[in-house]
Amino acid sequence: MKRVFAFLILLVAASDSAALRHRPRFLGRFAGSGLRNIAGDSKHAAQYQTRYFRQRLDHFSFADVPSFNQRYLVGPIGRLWAPPAPIFFYCGNEGDIEWFSDNTGFVWEIAHRFSSLVIFAEHRYYGESMPFGSKEKAYKDAKSLAYLTTEQALADFATLLTDFKRNMSAEDSPVILFGGSYGGMLAAWMRLKYPHIAIGALASSAPILQFEDLVPPNSFYDIASNDFKRESPNCFDVIKKSWNVLEDRGKQRHGLIGLSRKFRLCKDLIDTEQLSNWLDSAYSYLAMVDYPYASNFLMPLPAHPIKEVCKKVDGYPDGADILDRIFAGASIYYNYSGTVDCFDLEDDPHGMSGWDWQACTEMVMPLSSSKDSSMFPPSSFDFSALADFCIQKYDVRPRPRWVTTEFGGHDISTVLKKFGSNIIFSNGLLDPWSGGGVLQNISHSIIALVTKLGAHHIDLRSSTKDDPRWLSDLRDAELKLIKSWLNEYYLEKKSSYCI
Amino acid sequence: MKRVFAFLILLVAASDSAALRHRPRFLGRFAGSGLRNIAGDSKHAAQYQTRYFRQRLDHFSFADVPSFNQRYLVGPIGRLWAPPAPIFFYCGNEGDIEWFSDNTGFVWEIAHRFSSLVIFAEHRYYGESMPFGSKEKAYKDAKSLAYLTTEQALADFATLLTDFKRNMSAEDSPVILFGGSYGGMLAAWMRLKYPHIAIGALASSAPILQFEDLVPPNSFYDIASNDFKRESPNCFDVIKKSWNVLEDRGKQRHGLIGLSRKFRLCKDLIDTEQLSNWLDSAYSYLAMVDYPYASNFLMPLPAHPIKEVCKKVDGYPDGADILDRIFAGASIYYNYSGTVDCFDLEDDPHGMSGWDWQACTEMVMPLSSSKDSSMFPPSSFDFSALADFCIQKYDVRPRPRWVTTEFGGHDISTVLKKFGSNIIFSNGLLDPWSGGGVLQNISHSIIALVTKLGAHHIDLRSSTKDDPRWLSDLRDAELKLIKSWLNEYYLEKKSSYCI
Repeated sequence: MKRVFAFLILLVAASDSAALRHRPRFLGRFAGSGLRNIAGDSKHAAQYQTRYFRQRLDHFSFADVPSFNQRYLVGPIGRLWAPPAPIFFYCGNEGDIEWFSDNTGFVWEIAHRFSSLVIFAEHRYYGESMPFGSKEKAYKDAKSLAYLTTEQALADFATLLTDFKRNMSAEDSPVILFGGSYGGMLAAWMRLKYPHIAIGALASSAPILQFEDLVPPNSFYDIASNDFKRESPNCFDVIKKSWNVLEDRGKQRHGLIGLSRKFRLCKDLIDTEQLSNWLDSAYSYLAMVDYPYASNFLMPLPAHPIKEVCKKVDGYPDGADILDRIFAGASIYYNYSGTVDCFDLEDDPHGMSGWDWQACTEMVMPLSSSKDSSMFPPSSFDFSALADFCIQKYDVRPRPRWVTTEFGGHDISTVLKKFGSNIIFSNGLLDPWSGGGVLQNISHSIIALVTKLGAHHIDLRSSTKDDPRWLSDLRDAELKLIKSWLNEYYLEKKSSYCI
Repeated sequence: MKRVFAFLILLVAASDSAALRHRPRFLGRFAGSGLRNIAGDSKHAAQYQTRYFRQRLDHFSFADVPSFNQRYLVGPIGRLWAPPAPIFFYCGNEGDIEWFSDNTGFVWEIAHRFSSLVIFAEHRYYGESMPFGSKEKAYKDAKSLAYLTTEQALADFATLLTDFKRNMSAEDSPVILFGGSYGGMLAAWMRLKYPHIAIGALASSAPILQFEDLVPPNSFYDIASNDFKRESPNCFDVIKKSWNVLEDRGKQRHGLIGLSRKFRLCKDLIDTEQLSNWLDSAYSYLAMVDYPYASNFLMPLPAHPIKEVCKKVDGYPDGADILDRIFAGASIYYNYSGTVDCFDLEDDPHGMSGWDWQACTEMVMPLSSSKDSSMFPPSSFDFSALADFCIQKYDVRPRPRWVTTEFGGHDISTVLKKFGSNIIFSNGLLDPWSGGGVLQNISHSIIALVTKLGAHHIDLRSSTKDDPRWLSDLRDAELKLIKSWLNEYYLEKKSSYCI
């Protein structure tokens, strides 16, 4: 494995601007953004056909823009699906849809119990679903990226589903939505905005409240930090101290070269921020994928990867260089397979990340790192810095209040207590994004399922022999709710179809 | 009054095409489209301030298009409004907002009972709310009209309300939506799509089901025809027979000139279709405004105008020319004031009608006129004719399935039975649009209020001393429901504010 996964660092070939050299922390860290299609759990790949659907690029105006092909996966192949049996629909998020399918085994596994069809729909501007014929053209500038918005993506899903059901004479087939992370946000919002298209949604690890002033902005880094502290307070302390050491070391004579050697970088550092961003990413993503079994979601990792990182960090004798501890810890994340010759901080497998555009337009999710409770470098959310970055990079101004205007969020309990139904918000409290999630039941059918030891949408992953009891229980609870939605639907439709 | 109101005839200066000469029946007939700002009940005009809000022209993409000023009216002036007292928000439809305010006295009348603020927001591309600086520029072509869509209008309302409430520190003020006709559709859809913005909606005479195959396409003309038949079966028969007579007469030597004289037209007819369209309009609108008291909504009219029309039609001695009967009847509609010298069929007070664009894009509302039960010329909805018209006129292709994809409609009871709340659908069965309305309760808080003798959104009009009992009862029922929504809201918010 020559190229190392380091997907948060932007490759900014055309600009020397310091502001653009690093991916700013305020853009947020979702799992799919900029991800290479790494090897996943592809045991479901043989189960689906790949199809394409012609979509309007602009659903909400009649601007004269070309249509594009949206990719979607349909399966399982070889099973008879007969309407009005259900359709399980995964709302693709910011990446290649095959990769999400590979990492959402739960949906494939449960489909047969409901005799359900499964569709994984790719999000526009990701994977193969590129407007204007190619990623290069789609990502050319603000004009070509203009139609990469959440509302357009939801309208894609609505249009695809409506057309698909009509063509299959499946108008009576109920649709259940699934999604994790940003995909989970899409699933929840889709259920709210298109109740006639889908009867319910499982929104896993969906931080729909990580906007404006809805939740404290420091929750993400606080939770990630606590994930380390719970494994080892010393580990937390070492990491917390390391940022200053890193900076000081970089300022020394030949300091950057020394750091580059110590961290086995392929190219010498230009500044220490490159390196701290790289480490920040590792810790953030480790918190997201802190699964209780070995996994290969973002990177090949052992079970309880934070525990393993902290073992490395703590394992050095007293007096050892703090940066040796840090490097050893980070290597668990970046080189668990042990095959990396050198680390390439500028590696950006997809060239450009659509999430950056989304974070620069609608998905303004304020994140801060507090001085005390976070082990990450302190930072506070600075909207004008974000705006400057976005104007410089895309010539676009973020709309920080748009998501709450369009999708709500303020006082969500009152709003949805007597409006809407059939949504599961599942969150694991190890997941740093859980701070922006819905953690309490809103009504008898808008349900929060919270697990103390869950990480980022673990419930959507394939079952494994090492699944802990709480995880099986969580999935059982989800299945029970989905089953009740379907039964209620069929009863309402007075259909003879039973599940 | 020199120019006569005849707002369904398109002025097509640039085209000689027969297809473009007349406004096709399939575009549908809403009250506000192309309306001149005629004298209305302006007694509330002194109650409001006129303000303007800077809106994005495109909420759903980041296309580089200019913003525009949306007009809105705020009142009542001179009363103290103190949050969290409610906001009553009228969703402006396809016309000048002052005209809607003048004809929606109900909202102004009830505001004081709730200590409520009233906002009437103008719909983009109507009245003064013109993108690109002028109506001429906004209506130039498909490119400039591209952003005249329902979704953009709803997003305007959402953005305006959110900003307004923030500026007034009124985040806790509940919003109740009001709307009639297309504005009623907007109110209902707004409550469904933006439940966090408004806690309830009164959607009066809102034919949200007049799309695709949701209701029989002949309901509009059947209901209008029955309105005449119920006053006088003979009147119905005469009108039904008149179309052929009209056509035959037109084919005679000097027939068109003869018809032009008989109908006192300012300009000689080019074909009989011009005249039949003019009559068709009169009957359609008479059915909509068949109020039990004298009114001046579309035209100055007596109480029970259809009864008056039929009196004229029936009043001629046996053997009289059927077209004399027809002209006398139509004159009730077009010349009740008796001040018209000649009738101008091409009169189009606004030059171009935004509703035509909407009907050519999203608002595809199939209308047919059946051979037997309708007194109108038989016609069946022909989508390809519509598409041809729209391509020729605007170079735009209608999207007949979009509204049901975006807003639903199929199986609305099942969909909304456990989703959504706090909507009143009020319909009067004299109103031809009631055939596309929600006429049965969907849930305990999505309520249908149906009056046998009501016409087009009569409940929203100012009260008069001649209001029949059923109308006062209807308004009382609406007030009771609105009050219950507000009380529930304040209770939920544990606010000390009571109404």
